[in-house]
This record gives sequence, structure tokens and C-alpha cells, in this order.
Amino acid sequence: MKLQNDLFLRAARGEKTERPPVWLMRQAGRILPQYRALRGSLSGFKELVETPHLAAEVTIQPVDELGVDAAIIFSDILVIPEAMGLTYEMVEKKGPLFPQTIESQSDIEKLIVGAEAASELQYVYDALKITKQELNGRVPLIGFSGAPWTILAYMVEGSGSKTFSKAKKFLYTQPEAAHMLLQKITDTTIAYLQNKVKSGADLIQIFDSWAGILSPAQFSTFAAPYIAQIAAAITDVPVTVFAKNAWFAYAEIGKMDCNVIGVDWNTHPTFARELVGKDKVFQGNLDPCQLYAPAADVRNATLNMLKSFGGEKHIANLGHGVYPDTPLDNVKVFVDTVKGWEGV
Amino acid sequence: MKLQNDLFLRAARGEKTERPPVWLMRQAGRILPQYRALRGSLSGFKELVETPHLAAEVTIQPVDELGVDAAIIFSDILVIPEAMGLTYEMVEKKGPLFPQTIESQSDIEKLIVGAEAASELQYVYDALKITKQELNGRVPLIGFSGAPWTILAYMVEGSGSKTFSKAKKFLYTQPEAAHMLLQKITDTTIAYLQNKVKSGADLIQIFDSWAGILSPAQFSTFAAPYIAQIAAAITDVPVTVFAKNAWFAYAEIGKMDCNVIGVDWNTHPTFARELVGKDKVFQGNLDPCQLYAPAADVRNATLNMLKSFGGEKHIANLGHGVYPDTPLDNVKVFVDTVKGWEGV
Repeated sequence: MKLQNDLFLRAARGEKTERPPVWLMRQAGRILPQYRALRGSLSGFKELVETPHLAAEVTIQPVDELGVDAAIIFSDILVIPEAMGLTYEMVEKKGPLFPQTIESQSDIEKLIVGAEAASELQYVYDALKITKQELNGRVPLIGFSGAPWTILAYMVEGSGSKTFSKAKKFLYTQPEAAHMLLQKITDTTIAYLQNKVKSGADLIQIFDSWAGILSPAQFSTFAAPYIAQIAAAITDVPVTVFAKNAWFAYAEIGKMDCNVIGVDWNTHPTFARELVGKDKVFQGNLDPCQLYAPAADVRNATLNMLKSFGGEKHIANLGHGVYPDTPLDNVKVFVDTVKGWEGV
Repeated sequence: MKLQNDLFLRAARGEKTERPPVWLMRQAGRILPQYRALRGSLSGFKELVETPHLAAEVTIQPVDELGVDAAIIFSDILVIPEAMGLTYEMVEKKGPLFPQTIESQSDIEKLIVGAEAASELQYVYDALKITKQELNGRVPLIGFSGAPWTILAYMVEGSGSKTFSKAKKFLYTQPEAAHMLLQKITDTTIAYLQNKVKSGADLIQIFDSWAGILSPAQFSTFAAPYIAQIAAAITDVPVTVFAKNAWFAYAEIGKMDCNVIGVDWNTHPTFARELVGKDKVFQGNLDPCQLYAPAADVRNATLNMLKSFGGEKHIANLGHGVYPDTPLDNVKVFVDTVKGWEGV
């Protein structure tokens, strides 16, 4: 099916575009009244993730409501550990919780891996297929996964954490087991993402949400090689790598076989460009809290952000997922400011 | 009273020293069995903070047990909001909680400010005096405060937070009120720290624990000018500024009237040195999680860290406070490795 709006994909491939495309991380979610209404009628978050026609519905909501240039499939990075054998619960107001965690090599040996694990996630592939059909070519559809280190962090820690010190301790005390686990997550993620592409994903984004708590040496050892494997294995569509808060890793990510690099709001694009070189496309980077400001300030800050990227090789987004209590009108100001921008 | 070991102060003043001095952020705390025994006999954390002879006792414990080159007074950055009129509770396993928070300008107008607020904290000054007496010149004593932005963050947010989005929202939506509050915190902090110096503090460290969640523009507007005011107002002893995760701020901090700059474990000293110039002394920066590793790895990592700073203008420390469940023996390996180092 031919895309009516392929701006996002052209930009992701590094082509010169008439303006930067725009979407928001976590655009399918609580910022939208349509989402909150649907979510309120369900038993929980996982019902939404695991029911393909509902996941498709909330994936399309921001396309209808905000007019963004891309949809991102509604799902969760934690479906991967679940498919590998560690189920998770999503505890209201607390976040994810794993009743069982990885403590040793023997725990890792019991995990399901690769295509076998990925075959557990048919509901995700079905959600992608339904979404593609219902989008009917309006905008491209993004598929995603967590990066292996971030997935390991949850599998070892068992929940969210400020420091993920238990997960980092695992890297320092059981490095061989850590590499074994990271490789199994990587193999599973590759099979999963290839299935996503077959099911219609037009671009794959890899989120390394906890990259920024690693030391640069740990990132090079335990994070980068596995992200690079995944990026290299996705050959049919463009790939975005977003390693949050890992400003020290730009040069390394810049060498990976990816098209787009996510930039958080702490990082000036000029700094990132110096480290990455001129070829990659950047995605970001307005501070999500900026959207709490009065509309005129949101508009000015968005314009400044657009200018700071120089008007090319740029996909406009926030520097992190949009916060659930962000005023919807301000999200629209952000999107509309990008869409109406006349360039530097 | 003449100091028997003034290595830390000589290094802080930028003098060439026979080896880098060493201490650990949060060294007075749960890593020590002596601390846990005393803490277990008390009603809570605040009893320890507010009872001068007990605060003095735990301040000195790491000097006895670890042989570090400096003591840091046992206290909490949140005594400042409390002295200004917002009491806090320390909830076991959850952290600080403020029953009342700052929401508007009228809340700010009600606060107690400056010398009047600082006079509420006699128990801190008494703790310093007792500590100085009991240390009897063995090592220098560090006094500290939070940086104004970090204190504002707690006063507005009311508790710890992953994103401090409520506090950041306050900066974006009520910038004038934010500046008014930051100035009041600054005035109070200056009076407080001057009292600490009069009570015997040999160096002052300012902790901007939440600097890293600000955008660079917000740091320049809402954080840096107030840290700079405090640093300039402390004239009798050296000053250390530690803005955690604010790698983008090194150049700005480098221009402040401070002697020492804290470096976190994400930041290579060479990167920081390029931005700061050659005059300031660095303090840091081993990853606190590194101390979970086997002793031989701790030793190697500590040696690598020492080399990375080049053997001068360096105070050895972690890149953040030591985690409470760190094996004491590994803390000793860290300290002893620094003390036995023969240089680059």
C-alpha cells in the first residue's frame, strides 16, 4: 500500500525534506482523552497491550487527534522478557514488577530464546497488521524494542529503580552470565523485530532507556555491541537508536548501522553532531516539561529547538516520552508549530 | 587546632600533593556496622540529624573505620526547607516527604529567610563544634548544603521523583516565583554555610543532586546563578560544587568562584578538563556500583580511575554517594588503593 505521507521515512533515510516530520514518544497514551476512556474500561494495561484490535485503536488515536507524521505501535518493551519466560505485572502507579528475576547462570539457561520466544508474541504482530490496515497508508508505522541492557536491567532488578544498582552489580560481579543473557535477549529481539517488519513496521526504534546510568566503559562492553547487532540485523527498514542520557555514547552509536539517533533534552544538537558526524539523522529533543508552559512559550521553545537542529537531518520529537499529565492543547501547539515551520 | 592530616585541604586549594586525598560521599552511613547499630537504637533518621553528639559520633565513624582523609558532617540537605518553614518527614524505604509544598508566590512569601531561618539550625552548628573537638585535628571537616534548584525541587515536588516534573513545571509556568524562591533559598543557604564555617567547617560542598534533569538553558537560568552566589559568599574556606549528571554545565561551573568540581562516573576527566580549564581541582569519580565487584576488580578500577585524572588536582571519591549495601571490605580496598598509590 502506498503511503500518502512518507515524510517521516524520507527524513529517516537522510533525504532532504520540505520540513522536519513530527511525532512524540508515548503519543499513544494518557495525554489523549480517547485513550483514557478506553483504558478506564479495561482490566489493566496488559489487556490493552495483548488485545490486537485495542492496541491498534490506541496506536491510531494520536494520528487522528494530533496529525502527527508517524504512528508507533502501542506495546511495551517488557513483552520480550515475558516471551523469554519471565512474566511481568504492571502495578498501577508503581510500574512493572517481575515476580521472578534473573540471579544466576542457571536462571539464564532456563530462558526461551530467539525465534521460539518471538513466536509467543503473535498478538503484537497481529496488532501491527490491523494497524497497517486501518491506517490505510496515512502515515508510516514504527515498531520498537528495548535495547538488551535495558531489558536485562528489568530482568535482574525486577522492577523500576532510581539506580538499577542490582542490575549494575550483576554486570560487575557476573560479567560472563551478563553477556550470556544479553546475547539471548539480542537473539530474541532480532527475531521479534524481524517479525514486526514482516507484519508491517516501516521503521524500528531501539530504546536504551537506562543507558545513561552505565559508566562509559560499561556502555561500550555491555550495551553497544548488542544494540549494534540488532541494528545490523534489521535490513529492510530504517533503524533509530535512542540511548537516553548516554551523551558519552554518541560517537559509538554514530558508528552503528542505524539511520536515526535519538537526542535527549540535555544535549545540544551541535554537540551530538560533532561526535556523530554528518550522516545520521537526529530525532528530538524538546524537554517534555516544556509542554507545561503557556502556549506562546511552547511555540517559541519549539521554534528554537527546530533552529538548533539546522532544519535538516532532523525528526522533531521530545527528548523523552511525553508526560501523561501534559495539556493536550500544548501538545497540539508543539505539533502544529513544527508543521507550520518555514525553515531556518 | 593544627590539622595533623591536611592533605585534603591542600589538594582542594590546588596545591601539589604527595598523593590524591580520599573520602567517600555518604561515608557516614549504612555501609558501617557502627552506624547501623546506633541508627537501630533510635526513633528515626531525624533524631540522628538533630542530636549533635550523635551526629558527631557517626561523622567520625568512617575516619576511625576507613582511615579517610576528610570527615563530612552527618546531616541532610533538607534541613534548609525545614528551617524556612516546610517540615519534612523521612519515610523508611521511601525517602523524604513534605506534608506542605510550595505552589504559589503567596506560599513563598510566608517562608522564613536568611539569618533568621539559619538560626533555627543550631543543632547542626553544635554537631560541627563537637565533631571538631572530638576529631582533635585528625582530618578536616566538610560542611555542605543542597544547591538552590535541588532544594526548590523538593519544596515544590514534596518528595523524591524520577522526573521532578512538578518542580520543572513550576520553573516553566511560574518563572518569577521560582526566582523569588531560589533567591530566598540562596540567602538562607549562605547564612547557614557561613555559620557552618564559623562552627569549624574546613571546606563547603554544594550538592546539586538534580541538576542533571534540567535542560542546559534551565540550568543556566535557574541553577547556575544561585550556586555562583553561594560559592562567592564563602570566602574563608575552599568550596566544592557537585552538579550531578550535569555534564553540559562544566564550562559554566568552571567559571564559578569555587575550588573543586565534583565529577560523576559518566564523565571522563579529560572531557571535564577540556571544558573547565586547568585551574580547578576535580573530585570523583568511580562508579559506586564498581564496589560490588570482587576486590581485585575494585583495586584495578580504582587504579584506572586515579590514572585517568593524571595524578594531580584530584581528590579521589566515588561519582556519587556510596550505596548502603556496599561490602565494607570493598570500600576499604578503594580507600587503601588510593592511599597506597605510587602515582602515574
